[in-house]
Amino acid sequence: MNQNFSERILKTPASFIREILKVTENDEIISFAGGLPNPISFPKEQLRESMERIITEHGDKVFQYSSTEGYLPLRQWIAKQYKKTYRNDIEPEDILITTGSQQALDLMGKVLINQGDVLGIEEPGYLGAIQAFTMYEPDFAPIPLLEDGLDIEYLDKILKEKKMKLLYTVPNFQNPTGLTYSKQKRKELCEILKEHQTYLIEDDPYGKLRFQGESYPYIGSFGLERSVLFGTISKTITPGMRLGWICTKNKELMRHLVTAKQASDLHSNIFTQYMVYDYLTNYDLEKHIQKIKSLYLEQSTAMQKAMKEYFPENVSYTKPKGGMFVWGSLPEGKSSLELFHKAIQRKVAFVPGNPFYVDDSKMVPAFRLNYTNMKPPMIRKGIQILGETMKEI
Amino acid sequence: MNQNFSERILKTPASFIREILKVTENDEIISFAGGLPNPISFPKEQLRESMERIITEHGDKVFQYSSTEGYLPLRQWIAKQYKKTYRNDIEPEDILITTGSQQALDLMGKVLINQGDVLGIEEPGYLGAIQAFTMYEPDFAPIPLLEDGLDIEYLDKILKEKKMKLLYTVPNFQNPTGLTYSKQKRKELCEILKEHQTYLIEDDPYGKLRFQGESYPYIGSFGLERSVLFGTISKTITPGMRLGWICTKNKELMRHLVTAKQASDLHSNIFTQYMVYDYLTNYDLEKHIQKIKSLYLEQSTAMQKAMKEYFPENVSYTKPKGGMFVWGSLPEGKSSLELFHKAIQRKVAFVPGNPFYVDDSKMVPAFRLNYTNMKPPMIRKGIQILGETMKEI
Repeated sequence: MNQNFSERILKTPASFIREILKVTENDEIISFAGGLPNPISFPKEQLRESMERIITEHGDKVFQYSSTEGYLPLRQWIAKQYKKTYRNDIEPEDILITTGSQQALDLMGKVLINQGDVLGIEEPGYLGAIQAFTMYEPDFAPIPLLEDGLDIEYLDKILKEKKMKLLYTVPNFQNPTGLTYSKQKRKELCEILKEHQTYLIEDDPYGKLRFQGESYPYIGSFGLERSVLFGTISKTITPGMRLGWICTKNKELMRHLVTAKQASDLHSNIFTQYMVYDYLTNYDLEKHIQKIKSLYLEQSTAMQKAMKEYFPENVSYTKPKGGMFVWGSLPEGKSSLELFHKAIQRKVAFVPGNPFYVDDSKMVPAFRLNYTNMKPPMIRKGIQILGETMKEI
Repeated sequence: MNQNFSERILKTPASFIREILKVTENDEIISFAGGLPNPISFPKEQLRESMERIITEHGDKVFQYSSTEGYLPLRQWIAKQYKKTYRNDIEPEDILITTGSQQALDLMGKVLINQGDVLGIEEPGYLGAIQAFTMYEPDFAPIPLLEDGLDIEYLDKILKEKKMKLLYTVPNFQNPTGLTYSKQKRKELCEILKEHQTYLIEDDPYGKLRFQGESYPYIGSFGLERSVLFGTISKTITPGMRLGWICTKNKELMRHLVTAKQASDLHSNIFTQYMVYDYLTNYDLEKHIQKIKSLYLEQSTAMQKAMKEYFPENVSYTKPKGGMFVWGSLPEGKSSLELFHKAIQRKVAFVPGNPFYVDDSKMVPAFRLNYTNMKPPMIRKGIQILGETMKEI
């Protein structure tokens, strides 16, 4: 054993995507590999005005140390939104501002996970969550993700076999698959979880980016005591300022989260909190989001059309009604890594499926495509090249 | 055992200071309890100009996701400063931008500490460090802090008895004591640590705030392989935006820190990083710091003068030449908690010594005073009341 470092860090995978993104920084590459929101989603001029205004109106306060829980008016605004959307009883004290959703993951790991605790996660699942939770050395229990949400039968079996501490989900336009849990599946999941002591995280960065169909209630809204929601402004206002939140009505959990947050970074950037609150109260967020959704629908449509035209018939893919990603599946036995290496030579990039699996040494004949950062003609060209490459592996 | 939460969070103390600060929010209180920099240290107008400029010059980049290591020009600037000050071989790749120094503490705990690892810390020590490290369940080894730095004999004994993983220090104007390690002590400490596998953290938020005398080289600069420096803009530009850094030439440690940082919050606020870099290159930081130091010298002088006049002779206190704090010691057997409760009734607040000790149930006849947030006449009045109260316990 290397005694110089902690066991937890030696277990944590360095991000494979990080390595891929270095390759794709080259401008000549048609990249479906990233996970960046389109810059159209940054309301630059309005944020500039908000900054001016908060310095003038609040002076020193926007530069000074602040409270761990976060800026109260912002927490009030968030609570009100939840109330409006879900007719629920969310109050400002149920909201903790975090340094992006990534910190929300870290805090949940900190306050809940002892070494060896069972942690349920979608398979395939969000790799940032795998990375964050690995630090707390859980026993991961991957639950297959079906077209309409988690495989409930499989989950039920695991829940009966083991005490599961925490279940992590992304129910809307999941990363990496783009899949969304059906309303029926949400109800069933809630009913099953009620019988156990398992905390449920619903991480929801993409819910607001639905460009077709109607939204469903969150799983915890069907009455779950250990329900935890994550929210963020990363996909609708700006990711670079790292602002997210945790919402839970579980008081004891919230108290521990605040202590963990204080130990982790004292509080989140207060200037950003004032700025975002000013933006939310002075401009029309829904209208802004509409603009993002129109673009993403156009890009998604171009990709779906091109995939239908150019992908071999034995390659399947998801048809998301929102969010930023599509998940493709190669025929059994084909290697997405081989496809990746061949495609890169032709200047097209994507993310092979492996890093979205807890056991990333597994051969995964699948891949993730992002469509939010390319113009439709380039999407078409990239998919055509990818389709041709598929026939050669 | 409460199986709902992690063992680490159940061990972590909620901050006592946090509770005190709630009491002192009342405007009628003369408070020496806080640890806030004076708002004079926020260059508001210049930061406003910098914000305008970075949006104009860099556009979308200041709002988009960014790299975990931090904004390269800022890391270059920091490396250059270290080179200038210490004639050392610090390079940009030796700098990791963090979400304040508090995150630097969390990351060091994450990558180094296994449960039960021995962690040396000054006694009394910085309570934010005690809180952050407690999360990783170390076996704390408190080392007495003397007038000129750590008790080297005591440390040497501990180092020979146990394998110490990490030693945490604040060598300049320490929080809570205001004490500074002598040059001789720094050399001795470095020599002793060279014989062991112990990582040394030098946390330096106050080093730039020296208003009398000359600065000393950092301990690791005498040639220590496992040397780690923390820096921050919290006391010289703004604490509310949470920007700090870790500096180490230990490549393996840096690689693990980057992975831990990515798992913790992906990256620090990139807008803030651009803004601070713009500020540093377009304005005169040294001139700005001179203004802060002039004020703090005036406030410190007022407090020292008043303590000499009003404190009983059996009460001793430190005489810092920089930073933000003074540490006072009551005669053995006296209770600083009793003093606190009596003083609060007379509308004067400070922090009793307990929370600066790893074992905070210990009776500590000592206290911390902050002088950076009161005008000299109020400092004088508060110290007079405190002196009178001391005679009654």
